[in-house]
Amino acid sequence: MLKITKRFYGSMEIPKNKLKYIPTKGTYPKGFKVGSYASNVKKNGLPDLALIYSSKPCTAAGVFTTNKFKAAPVLIDIENIKIKENNNFNSIIINSGCANAVTGEGGLNDAKEIINYTDKILNNNVNGISNTLTMSTGVIGQRLQMDKIKNGIDNIINNINSNHEDWLNCAKGIMTTDTFSKLISRNFKINNINYSISGLCKGAGMICPNMATLLGLIITDAPIEGKTLNKLLKESVDKSFNCISVDGDMSTNDTILALSNGESGGKIITENSQEFKIFEKNFKELAIDLAKLVVRDGEGATKFITINVKNAKNDFEAKKAANSISNSALVKTAMFGKDANWGRILCAIGYSEIEVDPYKTNVSFVPVDGSEELKLLVNGEPQQVDESRASQILESEDLQIEIDLGLSGDGKCKFWTCDLSHDYVTINGDYRS
Amino acid sequence: MLKITKRFYGSMEIPKNKLKYIPTKGTYPKGFKVGSYASNVKKNGLPDLALIYSSKPCTAAGVFTTNKFKAAPVLIDIENIKIKENNNFNSIIINSGCANAVTGEGGLNDAKEIINYTDKILNNNVNGISNTLTMSTGVIGQRLQMDKIKNGIDNIINNINSNHEDWLNCAKGIMTTDTFSKLISRNFKINNINYSISGLCKGAGMICPNMATLLGLIITDAPIEGKTLNKLLKESVDKSFNCISVDGDMSTNDTILALSNGESGGKIITENSQEFKIFEKNFKELAIDLAKLVVRDGEGATKFITINVKNAKNDFEAKKAANSISNSALVKTAMFGKDANWGRILCAIGYSEIEVDPYKTNVSFVPVDGSEELKLLVNGEPQQVDESRASQILESEDLQIEIDLGLSGDGKCKFWTCDLSHDYVTINGDYRS
Repeated sequence: MLKITKRFYGSMEIPKNKLKYIPTKGTYPKGFKVGSYASNVKKNGLPDLALIYSSKPCTAAGVFTTNKFKAAPVLIDIENIKIKENNNFNSIIINSGCANAVTGEGGLNDAKEIINYTDKILNNNVNGISNTLTMSTGVIGQRLQMDKIKNGIDNIINNINSNHEDWLNCAKGIMTTDTFSKLISRNFKINNINYSISGLCKGAGMICPNMATLLGLIITDAPIEGKTLNKLLKESVDKSFNCISVDGDMSTNDTILALSNGESGGKIITENSQEFKIFEKNFKELAIDLAKLVVRDGEGATKFITINVKNAKNDFEAKKAANSISNSALVKTAMFGKDANWGRILCAIGYSEIEVDPYKTNVSFVPVDGSEELKLLVNGEPQQVDESRASQILESEDLQIEIDLGLSGDGKCKFWTCDLSHDYVTINGDYRS
Repeated sequence: MLKITKRFYGSMEIPKNKLKYIPTKGTYPKGFKVGSYASNVKKNGLPDLALIYSSKPCTAAGVFTTNKFKAAPVLIDIENIKIKENNNFNSIIINSGCANAVTGEGGLNDAKEIINYTDKILNNNVNGISNTLTMSTGVIGQRLQMDKIKNGIDNIINNINSNHEDWLNCAKGIMTTDTFSKLISRNFKINNINYSISGLCKGAGMICPNMATLLGLIITDAPIEGKTLNKLLKESVDKSFNCISVDGDMSTNDTILALSNGESGGKIITENSQEFKIFEKNFKELAIDLAKLVVRDGEGATKFITINVKNAKNDFEAKKAANSISNSALVKTAMFGKDANWGRILCAIGYSEIEVDPYKTNVSFVPVDGSEELKLLVNGEPQQVDESRASQILESEDLQIEIDLGLSGDGKCKFWTCDLSHDYVTINGDYRS
């Protein structure tokens, strides 16, 4: 029997097993005011506009979709961050419900109008290029309802503040097909100064241009230099948001932005500073934790699968193998069916165009409860698999698949994915009903 | 409500709407005896062994999976066709129910034993390398049940003949998750001599290493030179079996073999001969018709979608775009949901890593009833889509999606795919139940 899950524009009840991923408290970066507002772009009246604001200018960095059909806000942000060399941004305005993608010149003008209007309302002291960055997510091919959005910007400034609830509201304001809001915060000390990083993201299909997109925000009060932030964000995304897959599609709008306002004080953090190592570790771990939440909320997902590839020719090839396994419809349906169908895993490695030696390849299931791994293939030889043990392991929501390619290159990659279920087909096939 | 379709090892009733694809008569290549036998490898007692035999030696050619984990029969055929330079084969023995893939040295020995045993039973006059080619499809990672198969070979020689029913039985013997047997024949004249080509294939997932694989056979009585057959087969596969997708996975066993025994007489057909053009046309068209049948029987498919890409930078890029659209889970679920969600099509082109100009791109739905196309995107501008007309077009089983990339390169590709439905998830996720 098919359970129909309606999850459009955050209108569904939060599934009970996801409640544990929503924080009930947190300490957030100083000097930021955040929040959301329902401007009625979403028909169900849920928040569809979110704002992050720091009166103190921030360094900023962005990583953007490589899709050739980039949405208007993506094009605008890329240009502005480049021109301003990662410096002097105050705010990020995000609308959900309409992606402003494939909207031609008109769409570009809309995106520009949104950032200029936000600057004006916030009294951002603009010197040439807008101090506001922007993101959009939602339906593709439709123009923004600018009246509603401008009215929303007028109102949202009365709805931003610095408390836990404000950060949670902000995370809610960017949701589309997400079933729960995705917010994480981290606090740590460098030289006895307290620093905070918080992350927000949304996305439930890796991309789904009509209904979703991957958006991520990493906000910190640490004083990190613009170029350093830029490099760190790229490296972090490469091992986090670029190591997850729900359905293998890549959006026209995918964007991860980082802002740092330095409100916590301390020395400017540059790549070669002593402070950098601690900051880097916290930043990268937060990015991974944030990315994993997207997989946890994968459309229709019933499983959270870690793919751990080691001893590939190099890291690039390890990632190719992990990506291929993660996107195989046959692996994903087998996981949904709780079937120890390792042949499909092997097959996906085999067509990933990497170097393999069939007689050195090993595949295991590693249970998350710490019990012994279940070897499926050892040096290319299929093992006698204890089916009841396999079933037991596959009953769990979490599973790790370990691939040892047995090559001398030491290439490795950790990747996270989910299964492919009936609900995925329902969500993406039947959403108009 | 979910309709559960059981389609394992050809055990289900043939769906009524597929009956039209099974021929009720045919004229087949002279000099071949074909048939199948139930050797009880398939638990349901359906035929699992098929044989194609010509007493007159044949030229032979093969196109094989590029998966790095090639099954034993694939490795053996590649080597034997190469050593014998496409000449002197008498027979092809195919077993279904076990893929003999990832079976190590033991599996290679099994495949060799099968071809040697077949030679012996058929009194093939072997001079060094076996005159028999072999194919396997079914469960991966398991050894063949050699006793059953050898017993099957003993019996199958009493079950081969040249009638329509024998060809149909042969096509049945290679089925796995297929719902109907796939057989086509063509007859044509060159210089007043009658020639026949027949094609058989199986496959319902583009690949599904546990339960399916793409196998194809093209058999002719025309006297075609070995090297010419080899080149023609490669070219034909490139525009047929390599232009279809069900789920984007590529098997460890995918194989297309061609045999030509020259029984019809006439001059040897070489690439530069006058006769070649007519032969080539018929051969290539048959390959396309055969490949389309695989899509018609795609696991869970409710739609047959033709993707027609034109004005790409070159043919290679046109194929990349078509492939990307065909494998997008989001496009496929939208088609299942009969949703004119053209944004997903565009998105899949956008991440296919080809050259595009967003302002020159056009997307249309072309109905198969000959009525006017429905323009969705014209030179990058979204069109006002008449939703009721879109729904009407999407009600039909067949649909053509036309992509005009508007570039000067004249690159083009025709590709065939199906939708992604609940039944696909059921078939591949729940098959043990």
